Amino acid sequence: MLVLLTNDDGIFAPGLRALREIWERQEDCEVYVVAPAEERSASGHAITLFRPLMVEEVTFPGSLVKGWSVGGNPADAVKLAVGALLPRPPDLVISGINRGPNLGSDVFYSGTVSAAIEGTILGIRSVAVSLAAYEDGEYGLAARFSHHLVREALRHKWPPGVLLNVNVPPLEPEEIAGVAITRLGVRHYRNMFDRRVDPRGRVYYWLTGEAVDGEEPEDSDVMALRQNLISVTPVHLDLTHHGMVQTMASWDLTGALQRCLQAENNRAG
Amino acid sequence: MLVLLTNDDGIFAPGLRALREIWERQEDCEVYVVAPAEERSASGHAITLFRPLMVEEVTFPGSLVKGWSVGGNPADAVKLAVGALLPRPPDLVISGINRGPNLGSDVFYSGTVSAAIEGTILGIRSVAVSLAAYEDGEYGLAARFSHHLVREALRHKWPPGVLLNVNVPPLEPEEIAGVAITRLGVRHYRNMFDRRVDPRGRVYYWLTGEAVDGEEPEDSDVMALRQNLISVTPVHLDLTHHGMVQTMASWDLTGALQRCLQAENNRAG
Repeated sequence: MLVLLTNDDGIFAPGLRALREIWERQEDCEVYVVAPAEERSASGHAITLFRPLMVEEVTFPGSLVKGWSVGGNPADAVKLAVGALLPRPPDLVISGINRGPNLGSDVFYSGTVSAAIEGTILGIRSVAVSLAAYEDGEYGLAARFSHHLVREALRHKWPPGVLLNVNVPPLEPEEIAGVAITRLGVRHYRNMFDRRVDPRGRVYYWLTGEAVDGEEPEDSDVMALRQNLISVTPVHLDLTHHGMVQTMASWDLTGALQRCLQAENNRAG
Repeated sequence: MLVLLTNDDGIFAPGLRALREIWERQEDCEVYVVAPAEERSASGHAITLFRPLMVEEVTFPGSLVKGWSVGGNPADAVKLAVGALLPRPPDLVISGINRGPNLGSDVFYSGTVSAAIEGTILGIRSVAVSLAAYEDGEYGLAARFSHHLVREALRHKWPPGVLLNVNVPPLEPEEIAGVAITRLGVRHYRNMFDRRVDPRGRVYYWLTGEAVDGEEPEDSDVMALRQNLISVTPVHLDLTHHGMVQTMASWDLTGALQRCLQAENNRAG
């Protein structure tokens, strides 16, 4: 199996190193690392169209794994790995291990998850792994779990269109209460902005949102972490609300268009 | 109604001006514009955490609408508008009109759609509007349609959790064949990378993907545009694959965790 490792904390981050140390030990795996040169947290699914992507080969001390740093975002790194750098398309994309949780609606902002989304868009089975601690912690167990999870998933029917989003609580191994298969929670924030004025009189703001405990579905990833469980959430990319497609059949959108065309005619006349 | 207009092409882009000119005419609407100072296409759902957001008040020639430019991405602009700039939370977020289509899986990369996603996360009814032309065209009809669509949606049950993603074909009004309620298509790309070497010998790549005609579901937004129809796709934010949550109950993830813990013990022992 060709395994592509990536992340959003930068190619030399300790979470990615932990992943590499587990995956390069697997005899049936050929491992490559392609990741942003620098931290790209909260980069969402941004891609880089208006400037070139600088690429540098990197090596890792005591390792034979080949790597490239990319001057871009996680989605850029995956696109570039698959489209230009790797000898053949990967069988797996493993993204992480992120410093900090990626739960609930936060997956929209997450660079770690966006790398797995890009892998999935490209038809590759993908996993995003996060350690739910805001400072670097012990990534070994999370790295190991990503490997045993993938082995188990490959024994079953793991469709390539479904990525696995994993969050590991920052606990000693013996304190981890188990594994929960979860849905994405809500993840409430109190968005706050800190308004300041620069030395030249210009106004600027710092975003200082903090997560607040709100109501969460019992079977959500947020609740699992609160119960010291590892959460594994299957994530798909079909954003269509199929129920609403049916409901909207009763909306008079043809009438809405007619009214536009009449207004355009009146303006022209 | 308080209406927030935003985009990803920058606050003075002609597509946003067209939206403003339609919406500021509505007597029951109080309109504000908060948008990126510069073009932020393909910015995905990136938010800005590691540097401050510069904010400037702007005015528009011949208009009483109040605006702010934000030195950040579309999701930043919406967060900041709702959290700090507007006198009260908006009833509507209208994002666009984008220069270029936002169809199928491209919505993950789209700054225009990400502004509507941010509005939806914040509980506000949101619409993303795109003109499917790669150069600036006539935005009047698309702007007008956004207004009549919203009026029609508000007459019916439009849940705030469902954003409407609208794509308008770049045609003369009389050539538009109608409106289709669609699902997100697939949107195939041939990702290509143009490899170059800079004057100092460093390697870099330009992403030069182009959309290719591939198989698309008949009821997709991509197909609608090919048939000269306006597409309206209801988009939700629940990325959980609920079917897989059931399927995965048969995976032995507890066993996977046990194997990790044993390995950790062996290492410690």
